[in-house]
Amino acid sequence: MTTKHRYDDADRAAVYRAIAERRDMRHFLSTPVAATALQRLLSAAHQAPSVGMMQPWRFVRITDTNLRLSIHALVEEERLRTADALGERRDEFMRLKVEGILDCGELLVAALMDGRERHVFGRRTLPEMDTASLACAIQNMWLAARAEGLGLGWVSLFDPDALARLLAMPEGSRPLAVLCIGEVQEFYSRPMLEQEGWTRGGDIRGLVYENSWDMPGWPENQIQEQR
Amino acid sequence: MTTKHRYDDADRAAVYRAIAERRDMRHFLSTPVAATALQRLLSAAHQAPSVGMMQPWRFVRITDTNLRLSIHALVEEERLRTADALGERRDEFMRLKVEGILDCGELLVAALMDGRERHVFGRRTLPEMDTASLACAIQNMWLAARAEGLGLGWVSLFDPDALARLLAMPEGSRPLAVLCIGEVQEFYSRPMLEQEGWTRGGDIRGLVYENSWDMPGWPENQIQEQR
Repeated sequence: MTTKHRYDDADRAAVYRAIAERRDMRHFLSTPVAATALQRLLSAAHQAPSVGMMQPWRFVRITDTNLRLSIHALVEEERLRTADALGERRDEFMRLKVEGILDCGELLVAALMDGRERHVFGRRTLPEMDTASLACAIQNMWLAARAEGLGLGWVSLFDPDALARLLAMPEGSRPLAVLCIGEVQEFYSRPMLEQEGWTRGGDIRGLVYENSWDMPGWPENQIQEQR
Repeated sequence: MTTKHRYDDADRAAVYRAIAERRDMRHFLSTPVAATALQRLLSAAHQAPSVGMMQPWRFVRITDTNLRLSIHALVEEERLRTADALGERRDEFMRLKVEGILDCGELLVAALMDGRERHVFGRRTLPEMDTASLACAIQNMWLAARAEGLGLGWVSLFDPDALARLLAMPEGSRPLAVLCIGEVQEFYSRPMLEQEGWTRGGDIRGLVYENSWDMPGWPENQIQEQR
């Protein structure tokens, strides 16, 4: 099943390397991020697929220190509310580092544009496809950042309405991510929530079904690859 | 601003190459996909970030021909409904090829698991973070597929409740994507909806703001990179 469109082994390995080594970072050095590197990350985001090519993503760079402090305060507020909602794991959660907003070299807010109701193609029955498109853009940026040696952390602990007000966002738009970007001392060798003992990831082989939910379906080697 | 964690030029270029060359494919050859390649794609998906590490993704492989036909019929139904909803662009839309369900080597349905309401970490105020996590997983798979020389197309033209019934999905789960995967004759050189004149993508430089919505914020070269 070899295909003429397949990348050579080195290029293929590099793609899988970025996928494997990408981490959700919360520890940053405060070194500034070069504008050219940031341009490449934003361009990578913009090359993501989007439903009906609506390109619903917008990015707000936070360069104002007071605004960065306000965003941090907003996240801190939600961190406490989340801790309370977690009940018996409250104290354990409060010991986790969940963001690096005050430390990272570059802070972005990623948001969905307003006026999305006009876009029907591919989302008449699945309106959340705009959110999915923005997430694909952020994942592109995440992998590009890893290749650049830059960490990226996606913080979703905030009240979206409060953050929208802070950034003078129009009605109908919606922030989805506070993105911390920057140089790091080390990338975590495993996901940080595993490293800290908060949780353990599952095995993908149990999450693949065949034809019907819960029917085991991990692909086995009936079909051989020809190299 | 060079960093010790940065990939070498060749590896970095390979990551950007996959990002640039990935396409939402609708034209496929019917060659079967090797199980080992499919395993690598699913493992790439599973290495995606997920909010609070909830790993909400589930994949259903469609190996039953009748089921594949039923899914195609479901998509065809929604294609007609979408065409009607598009009004004056109806006929133009009907001429587009929007899926390759009957042709592709491998057909998967990607879905959100049930029981997601238990997961509060990072989604108390943003419940759609589960959808975002699944989209990141699909984007990983998409880039891995491109490196493998395999096309992938994300079809979102379906009634999620009807598809859930077809696959005996439990209450609380939700399908987000019908994924067509397989060998292709050629990858589109540009996004297919651009190639066909349906729409044109915007310029990322106009989608980046600074501190406040609509304030131009494309990063310029105040900070130089040191190589």
